[in-house]
Amino acid sequence: MSSTETSSPVIGILGGGQLAKMLSVAASRLGLKCHIFDPNVSCPASDVAKYHTVADYGDAKELETFAKKVDIITFEFENIPVQSLEQLTKFCIIRPNTNSLKISQSRILEKKFFNDLGLHTAPFTEVNETKELRTALKLIGTPAILKTNTLGYDGKGQSTINNFDELKDSFYKLGKKSCILERKILFDKEISIIICRSADGKVVSYDPGENIHTKGILRKTEVPANISTEIKIEAVIQAGKILNSLDYIGIMGIEFFLHDNKLIINEMAPRVHNSGHWTQSGCTIDQFEQHIRAICKFPLGDGRRHSSIIMENIIGNSGKQFLMDQNISLHLYGKTEANEGRKMGHVNRIKKMGM
Amino acid sequence: MSSTETSSPVIGILGGGQLAKMLSVAASRLGLKCHIFDPNVSCPASDVAKYHTVADYGDAKELETFAKKVDIITFEFENIPVQSLEQLTKFCIIRPNTNSLKISQSRILEKKFFNDLGLHTAPFTEVNETKELRTALKLIGTPAILKTNTLGYDGKGQSTINNFDELKDSFYKLGKKSCILERKILFDKEISIIICRSADGKVVSYDPGENIHTKGILRKTEVPANISTEIKIEAVIQAGKILNSLDYIGIMGIEFFLHDNKLIINEMAPRVHNSGHWTQSGCTIDQFEQHIRAICKFPLGDGRRHSSIIMENIIGNSGKQFLMDQNISLHLYGKTEANEGRKMGHVNRIKKMGM
Repeated sequence: MSSTETSSPVIGILGGGQLAKMLSVAASRLGLKCHIFDPNVSCPASDVAKYHTVADYGDAKELETFAKKVDIITFEFENIPVQSLEQLTKFCIIRPNTNSLKISQSRILEKKFFNDLGLHTAPFTEVNETKELRTALKLIGTPAILKTNTLGYDGKGQSTINNFDELKDSFYKLGKKSCILERKILFDKEISIIICRSADGKVVSYDPGENIHTKGILRKTEVPANISTEIKIEAVIQAGKILNSLDYIGIMGIEFFLHDNKLIINEMAPRVHNSGHWTQSGCTIDQFEQHIRAICKFPLGDGRRHSSIIMENIIGNSGKQFLMDQNISLHLYGKTEANEGRKMGHVNRIKKMGM
Repeated sequence: MSSTETSSPVIGILGGGQLAKMLSVAASRLGLKCHIFDPNVSCPASDVAKYHTVADYGDAKELETFAKKVDIITFEFENIPVQSLEQLTKFCIIRPNTNSLKISQSRILEKKFFNDLGLHTAPFTEVNETKELRTALKLIGTPAILKTNTLGYDGKGQSTINNFDELKDSFYKLGKKSCILERKILFDKEISIIICRSADGKVVSYDPGENIHTKGILRKTEVPANISTEIKIEAVIQAGKILNSLDYIGIMGIEFFLHDNKLIINEMAPRVHNSGHWTQSGCTIDQFEQHIRAICKFPLGDGRRHSSIIMENIIGNSGKQFLMDQNISLHLYGKTEANEGRKMGHVNRIKKMGM
């Protein structure tokens, strides 16, 4: 622990959704208090965090007051204005660093960053204007996916492209914003890795999980992923490269496609990740506590998995039906409106005890 | 679920210590909000509960306001004035019921209640005046223990008696209050059982744990207890008798001595119990969630143990040294002053996966 940092820091969290809620619970287990910054007065994390600033992410005055009240700031989602983070940095430590967030906010920056590290991505190109569409499609080929460069999550702002007309339609639907056109990978598996790096450069990984997405939303993660040891090691090495290169502190979730027994990196999330919720039931120290440990400069847990787990998201319904299951670990986020596609909770089932 | 009760109740908890903190976290996992009633503005539960009324347990006006704001009231400690509970009952459901709390508040009432159910206790007698001491000691024999009838916990207000002078001294030290003189049981083992009863009379028990106390404070619980199947079944049957007879709803912790392969019941706590903290790491649904489920009339978990656990209390020190252990489940309560004998946290270690 650094001598200039307190051993019982108050943790500021930008965003008050379910990830912030679970981070707050993990922090409280270590005797720490959390302070949420979220414009929604009844956001999930406000049920369990000690303090809550209800203000807009762009509110400079409130950001400053918040930053002065907490010891460390972290975030639970990527779409925070970089300007806000830059303001916060003047008053408080931010972990992980702003640069990691910046890169993850732009799909183009992110993919270039991966390529610069020697990691394989799907072929991609930038599209900013209608006149670039034809050349871009020729370059990438079909099937392709057109995505907005920024502000996309859970499959929002994405569509599959099979021909020029579809591409044009999509580009117009997305508002002719800066976009990325990617080759659609016809993958065999999607896996993700949840990995953590401490301030002194120690990297600890959890076992990769195998994910099933529908309509761009994660439905299910199964751990361990059914992959070879070589692929597993390769995924950890690639993830480690990313963290080291960013001088990253905290948990990162990284998604890969597996195609023809080769890893193709899809994206990174500089935060705790939905596909790491299984660690709550499968590990002594879960991703949320691991992240808190990392940003507080406490020693990291070793990431060991004691059980095989299936995690399933509860999407668009209350999840109350799972109360009937006597042997399931149920997590409800306390959201009141179960809109279509909204993550309301998740469940972890122990599939098998032991490795 | 009763049709007159809401499916997302706000839970009121009397007392804001670590048990209330862990109850609040368990409730939040089910998407529920908690409201703590505790005179201490910085009590542990205030770190994680949505609401907190800072008022004295005897403050009739604040109690009424509190009761009208919540849907169900429960408590995390026994020494709540019965008068306060009786006032709360006018405005809100209390689970478990006030009668169970009343009995547990008086060692004499409690032991008589056990005997009336046909359960074996240590021989005991009431002592209210100095002139009763000699007869009482003759009746009980030595070694004996003198305890105040009410308001004792963690070995406070207790002393071992070997002769009349010690008895007289102790009685004076305890302020000549109403006391109970008990035969001291030279037991082979101390075990406890954490057991839950639902509103519709379903009883679910966790496996008995084996406890080690020092200076009247629980130091360690190991699960499973090293006892025969017969003793285990007998303990569950006795505990079930108690819960049924009280028409009890929620978790109860019951302590037994094992002497010459016979169970002698020591005491009951009408709440979640320190010796049940192992369930956080050993069971899918822990004692805290089980209690919340019971008082909300949600289905109970089945109490199955998936691992063998050793729970150790952190007493009189910060517990930060346990952060170094990469494979321990650490729970710090967020208390700032580590006074001697003060419970600051606990750790759970997985001893062995599986039953």
